[in-house]
Amino acid sequence: MATLLLRLLLLLAMLLTRAAADASFPINVWPKPVSMSWAEPYTAVPVSPSFHIVAPSGNPYLASAAERYAKLMVTERYRPVVGPAVTININAGTALAKLTVAVSDLAAPLQHGVDESYTLEILPAGGAATVTAVTAWGAMRGLETFSQLAWRAGHGRGRDLLLVASGVRVEDRPLYPHRGLMLDTGRTYFPVSDILRTIDVMAANKMNVFHWHITDSQSFPIELPSEPQLAEKGAYGEDMRYTVKDVKRIVEFAMSRGVRVVPEIDSPGHTASWAGAYPEAVSCAGQFWLPGGDWDDRLAAEPGAGQLNPLAPKTYEVITNVVNDLTSLFPDGFYHAGADEVTPGCWHADPTIQADLDRGATLSQLLERYVSAVHPLVVSRNRTAVYWEDVLLDAAVNVSASAIPPATTILQTWNNGPNNTKLIVQAGYRAIVSSASFYYLDCGHGDFVGNNSIYDDPNSDFDTKGGSWCGPYKTWQRVYDYDIAYGLTADEARLVIGGEVAMWTEQVDATVLDGRVWPRASAMAEALWSGNRDAAGRKRYAEATDRLTDWRNRMVGRGVRAEPIQPLWCRTRPGMCNAVQ
Amino acid sequence: MATLLLRLLLLLAMLLTRAAADASFPINVWPKPVSMSWAEPYTAVPVSPSFHIVAPSGNPYLASAAERYAKLMVTERYRPVVGPAVTININAGTALAKLTVAVSDLAAPLQHGVDESYTLEILPAGGAATVTAVTAWGAMRGLETFSQLAWRAGHGRGRDLLLVASGVRVEDRPLYPHRGLMLDTGRTYFPVSDILRTIDVMAANKMNVFHWHITDSQSFPIELPSEPQLAEKGAYGEDMRYTVKDVKRIVEFAMSRGVRVVPEIDSPGHTASWAGAYPEAVSCAGQFWLPGGDWDDRLAAEPGAGQLNPLAPKTYEVITNVVNDLTSLFPDGFYHAGADEVTPGCWHADPTIQADLDRGATLSQLLERYVSAVHPLVVSRNRTAVYWEDVLLDAAVNVSASAIPPATTILQTWNNGPNNTKLIVQAGYRAIVSSASFYYLDCGHGDFVGNNSIYDDPNSDFDTKGGSWCGPYKTWQRVYDYDIAYGLTADEARLVIGGEVAMWTEQVDATVLDGRVWPRASAMAEALWSGNRDAAGRKRYAEATDRLTDWRNRMVGRGVRAEPIQPLWCRTRPGMCNAVQ
Repeated sequence: MATLLLRLLLLLAMLLTRAAADASFPINVWPKPVSMSWAEPYTAVPVSPSFHIVAPSGNPYLASAAERYAKLMVTERYRPVVGPAVTININAGTALAKLTVAVSDLAAPLQHGVDESYTLEILPAGGAATVTAVTAWGAMRGLETFSQLAWRAGHGRGRDLLLVASGVRVEDRPLYPHRGLMLDTGRTYFPVSDILRTIDVMAANKMNVFHWHITDSQSFPIELPSEPQLAEKGAYGEDMRYTVKDVKRIVEFAMSRGVRVVPEIDSPGHTASWAGAYPEAVSCAGQFWLPGGDWDDRLAAEPGAGQLNPLAPKTYEVITNVVNDLTSLFPDGFYHAGADEVTPGCWHADPTIQADLDRGATLSQLLERYVSAVHPLVVSRNRTAVYWEDVLLDAAVNVSASAIPPATTILQTWNNGPNNTKLIVQAGYRAIVSSASFYYLDCGHGDFVGNNSIYDDPNSDFDTKGGSWCGPYKTWQRVYDYDIAYGLTADEARLVIGGEVAMWTEQVDATVLDGRVWPRASAMAEALWSGNRDAAGRKRYAEATDRLTDWRNRMVGRGVRAEPIQPLWCRTRPGMCNAVQ
Repeated sequence: MATLLLRLLLLLAMLLTRAAADASFPINVWPKPVSMSWAEPYTAVPVSPSFHIVAPSGNPYLASAAERYAKLMVTERYRPVVGPAVTININAGTALAKLTVAVSDLAAPLQHGVDESYTLEILPAGGAATVTAVTAWGAMRGLETFSQLAWRAGHGRGRDLLLVASGVRVEDRPLYPHRGLMLDTGRTYFPVSDILRTIDVMAANKMNVFHWHITDSQSFPIELPSEPQLAEKGAYGEDMRYTVKDVKRIVEFAMSRGVRVVPEIDSPGHTASWAGAYPEAVSCAGQFWLPGGDWDDRLAAEPGAGQLNPLAPKTYEVITNVVNDLTSLFPDGFYHAGADEVTPGCWHADPTIQADLDRGATLSQLLERYVSAVHPLVVSRNRTAVYWEDVLLDAAVNVSASAIPPATTILQTWNNGPNNTKLIVQAGYRAIVSSASFYYLDCGHGDFVGNNSIYDDPNSDFDTKGGSWCGPYKTWQRVYDYDIAYGLTADEARLVIGGEVAMWTEQVDATVLDGRVWPRASAMAEALWSGNRDAAGRKRYAEATDRLTDWRNRMVGRGVRAEPIQPLWCRTRPGMCNAVQ
């Protein structure tokens, strides 16, 4: 009893010494919930060593999530750099031993637009905590919020207490149904473990779509039952292929986190890696991408060159098998068919195609011939087809809207910021926003192309894009501040289903993946979940800084090498590192 | 015998299939030696499992290096993505069991300008290998080169052979005696293990100076025997301080790698962290750095504010103890005294100083009073004083040359590219080049200052510096191409002793340190060791690309999370990822 009193005194002493950091809510949750209240006077209760979560049976994914979060509550022991910025009364007597999960529609499948809302309540006395949701997926979001309300208090000297805020009520739901991360495993192979870790952190950020850009011109790392040659000849190596078992494991893991996996096999461009198996189906493969150094005549957007030949029968035989295999392997309702950066030079370099063009055909007709064959395949497999915006908006090579009906098509924008988003929705299509000016995580690290003299300038201070076509680096603030429906009418905005940060991997592999993605992806995660503005409608980037530092630290504790955004000095001195006081 | 033949056939088959990548020398060494030859027909011999290195006794650092490299030879087993680009005859019969090191001046201390030249010879038959050097430090460079001539050949299926090139002769010496990396442990604390790992990789890159920017306004992490209060009140925490034992360990570890440790205690600016212990010695400490938001009136270059008061007697008492302790802890002949970014606003904000200014004193006189007191202290400890260029070149606050005699002073340049280098050497000072336009590794990741609206621009493609004052990111090519003596006469160039890449740590900690530093620091390491041009005088950035990829991969194998510079696709297709064929 004496030690308990001593413990409480120590705690209160520590908690009282903190200066106010975030008046809105003194414990940080990322992404910030839509509505969150903590009854005053603030109370917290210890987390019982026997803490467990009672979830309804019947949904294995929810069951595993409950087990996972129950374990996390007692093992994470996250200790904030700065404790909660208010006085908290510790009800040391009543430890929280149980959280109960209630779900009204346990069978609701994980798919686009599924209800992710939840209500979290932790009674003041700490006797009980509940997460109520329509679906298992919403319940998972509530469990994540709950885990972030727990922290370790004390001096790290054995007297620590594992606490969770009590008297808390959260009512929460996302602004946008599609909150994704795209990872390119075509240019660089990533071991399965790195993909699983990434998906796990995505879920912790309440992100729900892993857009897997599986293949590209550099490699074809997925083993397809109907087309084994593609990986055998197109992967970087035997040890750099995703087996059917790997894919099932990734899909199941993501499902257990409430994350959908949308597969992309990019075509007809970005397919040089298919040429090893089917040279007859790939134009300009193996050729130098920039003959003569003239960009207008280049054979590909970047090395290496090669895109499917829409005149070759083999092309359709292969893509049919690919679509069938992919839609068998991946249960999601979306199928990403790519169709970006079809390069005129490559098709011009193909004699059979050039002959067709000489007979009056156009590049756009060639692309439309291909897309018109593939789109129905995708639809026949009950999938909504996602394409990069190029398929409609590319100036040189594009298809007519009739080839990609809005009812079965979503376009993903990456050029011209808000302008192309507007063009897409005005054309009646649903849009996924991945603007390279805001959401491309690879930008700002120069370029990988070799034998390039642009860097050799001893005079200038080189205050340019530094060799990166989409430079500069997109800072977390840049990501956070972007309004993906900017400039749209209310009707137009309804067609924007969400956004994706994109991790292209010309210069990224497993050694640096985490720091390149996190915490910048977290910035988008909050902007698309609860927005980037405060109650008064002002952008809340100032308020978000300390919260993001805390969240980044918590992610590091969970095993993710996220990069820091400020010196520790700033976090311990609220407001002192600001540009404006 | 049958298996041996089979093995050789496998190897030759593999080796013969490679396309020529680097005609100059088919095995990659980084930094590229000044002179390296491999007798044709190319031969290689297996490394004997009993391989050992015989070094002369009498130098414990050389002895430990010999032991370390002998172990590395049999344990590294580096397997190149692409094998040597030529046919190599394997003398499987004669394994290399021994390398002999000969040093003429074993006692030569590790100091600026010490002879680092070496000759490495591996006889064609593989019977013997020798490293001959004037000093132990040169011998270490030779051992590193030797280790990079070894590789694992085969298919990774048990039939592998550990090979080392034979019939090789290397004659090598550095272009510049000062090849450094600066790490800032004042803004972010780095555990000792991260510092040791960094120094270890530096040595592998033949870099020889670890410039330790120990303290800054954010924290004072070093425990000084005469001034214990500085760390007690100024460190981030009890577990974020470098003890005397830590320092000795770091210095000894660096010595065993042939790396000097140059300590920097920055003053009189960047000293807010001293105020906890001695408020009477620090001006404007604890104040908001940007009152009113007017940059001309700011109290510090960045948060937080605070610089030593040159009118306070306590200032001199403390700095005297600091210099004495530092020069006792660090044996190196250089002592870095900082003196950058003395901010007028801070001293103006100090009533006692403002009163002095009102009486007609100038800011430069105040700085000179301080420097004139500290410089003799440093010299009296037999040290050459290094300062940031600001002390002489800052427009608002600077000292006259008489206060910092060129004989005992070196200036480190960071502004205005080659222009300030020229100003420094023309003033008769030796220069260390750390141009922010080329050698600042922190640039291009935005800024850490909070509540900043500059990122909130939905329209522009934001093709600016992205919020980073020294943006864009300095790519490896940018670092590699820089000629640190650009625009200097031969006489002026003689005063440039070398360069340092600088890792400032507002947004870097141990989670992302490696990728931010490597392989970009390697680019400088080669440029300062053997230059950045080929025999014909052309910049060799094109040829360097594949070599740097290989070296980066080898560094990753050695436990450093260096970032990749190209997709694997490029390395396996020499020249195909170039901008110009």
